[in-house]
Amino acid sequence: AVDAQRLLGRIRELGAVGRDSEGRLIRLAASDTDRLGRDLFVGWLRQAGLDVAIDRVGNIFGIWQSPDNAGQAPLLIGSHIDTVIDAGIYDGCYGVLAGLEVIETLKASGFSPPRPVAIAAFTNEEGVRYTPDMMGSLVHAGGIGFETVLAAVGTDGSVLGQELARIGYAGDKEPGFLKPHAYLELHIEQGPVLEREGVPIGAVENLQGISWQRITIDGVANHAGTTPMSMRSDAGHAAARVITFLHDRAKASNTPTVATVGTIRFEPNAINVIPSQAVFTVDLRHPDEQRLQAEEAALAACLEQLAVAEGVTISVERLARFEPVIFDIRIVELIEAAAKNRGLGVKRMTSGAGHDAQMMARIAPAAMIFVPSAGGISHNPREHTEDADLVAGANILLDVVTDLAK
Amino acid sequence: AVDAQRLLGRIRELGAVGRDSEGRLIRLAASDTDRLGRDLFVGWLRQAGLDVAIDRVGNIFGIWQSPDNAGQAPLLIGSHIDTVIDAGIYDGCYGVLAGLEVIETLKASGFSPPRPVAIAAFTNEEGVRYTPDMMGSLVHAGGIGFETVLAAVGTDGSVLGQELARIGYAGDKEPGFLKPHAYLELHIEQGPVLEREGVPIGAVENLQGISWQRITIDGVANHAGTTPMSMRSDAGHAAARVITFLHDRAKASNTPTVATVGTIRFEPNAINVIPSQAVFTVDLRHPDEQRLQAEEAALAACLEQLAVAEGVTISVERLARFEPVIFDIRIVELIEAAAKNRGLGVKRMTSGAGHDAQMMARIAPAAMIFVPSAGGISHNPREHTEDADLVAGANILLDVVTDLAK
Ligand SMILES: NC(=O)NCCC(=O)O
Ligand SMILES: NC(=O)NCCC(=O)O
Repeated sequence: AVDAQRLLGRIRELGAVGRDSEGRLIRLAASDTDRLGRDLFVGWLRQAGLDVAIDRVGNIFGIWQSPDNAGQAPLLIGSHIDTVIDAGIYDGCYGVLAGLEVIETLKASGFSPPRPVAIAAFTNEEGVRYTPDMMGSLVHAGGIGFETVLAAVGTDGSVLGQELARIGYAGDKEPGFLKPHAYLELHIEQGPVLEREGVPIGAVENLQGISWQRITIDGVANHAGTTPMSMRSDAGHAAARVITFLHDRAKASNTPTVATVGTIRFEPNAINVIPSQAVFTVDLRHPDEQRLQAEEAALAACLEQLAVAEGVTISVERLARFEPVIFDIRIVELIEAAAKNRGLGVKRMTSGAGHDAQMMARIAPAAMIFVPSAGGISHNPREHTEDADLVAGANILLDVVTDLAK
Repeated sequence: AVDAQRLLGRIRELGAVGRDSEGRLIRLAASDTDRLGRDLFVGWLRQAGLDVAIDRVGNIFGIWQSPDNAGQAPLLIGSHIDTVIDAGIYDGCYGVLAGLEVIETLKASGFSPPRPVAIAAFTNEEGVRYTPDMMGSLVHAGGIGFETVLAAVGTDGSVLGQELARIGYAGDKEPGFLKPHAYLELHIEQGPVLEREGVPIGAVENLQGISWQRITIDGVANHAGTTPMSMRSDAGHAAARVITFLHDRAKASNTPTVATVGTIRFEPNAINVIPSQAVFTVDLRHPDEQRLQAEEAALAACLEQLAVAEGVTISVERLARFEPVIFDIRIVELIEAAAKNRGLGVKRMTSGAGHDAQMMARIAPAAMIFVPSAGGISHNPREHTEDADLVAGANILLDVVTDLAK
């Protein structure tokens, strides 16, 4: 079994890094606080005697290999340590630190695996500062060129490549240098299912599709007091129409569609000026590709109709688009077997969130283990998972890694 | 008649001051660019041989008085030279520069008025950086204490009193030191009425009521991918509901209600996080106080219902509230007579915008002269009034000032 105190202590220690003056946890990808988190993690990798490798997009790898197995394709465990704004401490970090914990436990046990075992912390999984999300693992899987993502411009106008160089994490390894035999990721569920059903372990068999778009609506600035309602081209009002349309449609559908407008900005953003421009993001998800396409089409039709009705012009930029992924059934079955073996309830389930496993599934058999999230809350400082569940999840990871490394 | 070239030249010269790198005109109250505009204006006041006085809230006065009339209550002409963001060059500046032009014309003509004539540029008429709007004239009229407004915190976190001191316009005159005999303001209409009716001069007989509120909606941040629609408390969606409610209600009413949401901000403002907070402003106006109260009550009821339906908490802050104002009928008649005398069409009308005259009407007989705005566009760089209309308006001001100064 893993060293529960070491694991829990590290989760808390990393969770204390990157707090702002109000105590909010903000470790956006390639920021100064991300550097602090990375430095702490790399220190632990070295302490554990692992080989540390950093690639050109800042993905960090801790590799446990021996002269005997160095030629073999490694078993890779991974997740991320970047966070959203005002984050909880578990999202991503739990999986990375549990992976390290599993390797240290196996090393200490005298186990000599036939293939290397490695832990990865991928750059910019959250997609908050730079899009798309799951960026580092997408590059590793060959889904996008590293030059492209290094040129990505962030919400703050920064350029990813410059930021990685600045914080000292523009590595020299070629992205994708490590070809995994299989990929495993342990993560908090971030949703309400496991808690509601009283099941401690999720064996994640698929992951829903994700569509991110940035919509820009251009209207005409005019005086809030003198302009009759009938003479307005109000970009802000048109944006509000899109938000209520998406919400009502997703809520009324009898499928698990989710639709979110998480960011918005008005120009000129003055109290007595009708907005000339509204820019906002749309996050649409569905486990079924056909339905996700239908949701995108409905949004496009809404925008077209709105442009005419409101006298505005609308442009759309695609920020991320990932089809649903089905994970490797053999690994899903190994997770179920490990849970049963330890007397733990287990449930096959879908992931509502995007994960690095979704990208790695393109190049290796992959699956994920979930543990419950209290109240289904994530991307919120109230994100919480019970210690017992965190430790149980890490032990299931240990068992499956032991199986797969053989 | 006024010197048309001098007037038009100054309007353009002042309109070139305070441009940002994209060429946008931004002279927010008490900012660095406002300082540049003020310095230019004060230079012109001195050139004209006027006595310059600046009060504690930064209101600027140029006073034309003689030993003969120094004891009399002055006739005051006024408006403002602060602007919105990405403004046109006429809003406010036209009235201030025409007032100066009228005084210079009268001085040069050898006219010796029985009372002083003064021109005022009031601080922060726009209300974009600090609320309420018409701040300087409200203080002058005794509607709010100067200590209160000097403590006002701006949209950028600045404090008005500190900013006025920094730019050198924290004057030493007691606010209200100048008690006007009457008050006149010339302004572009900023709306579509005069142009549509082909009338060059508006005699403004009343001004609609203004209600400004800041609404804060608190929901629960959660993950955009994992949180079912039925489990959300989405502050951003709730804000969008308010925006569409206000718009639909105003548009459907058969009264001239106008409703505008000009500013918005989401927290944490991340693409995959359900907004925990939305903060936005509401600008509601109506010429009839009872109807304005009904609009405010409808908004309050909407918020109450929304709080329950969406599981959010809502708080409301009042930023400005001014009842409709009826201007002095004798001055309105003088304006009509002056227009007829010059063979110009004239129309009695309502002002849709707020103006300093609205505040000054509390302490002196007041009225306003309007000239047409092309396309009814204002608070927009495309704001435009034909030179002939600008000159005609200034000549009507000259005539009415000549009458009232007697
Ligand atoms: N697990 C997680 O929160 N990933 C971030 C990408 C997303 O799903 O929005
Ligand atoms: N005239 C003018 O634009 N005033 C600003 C205050 C308002 O919003 O009406």
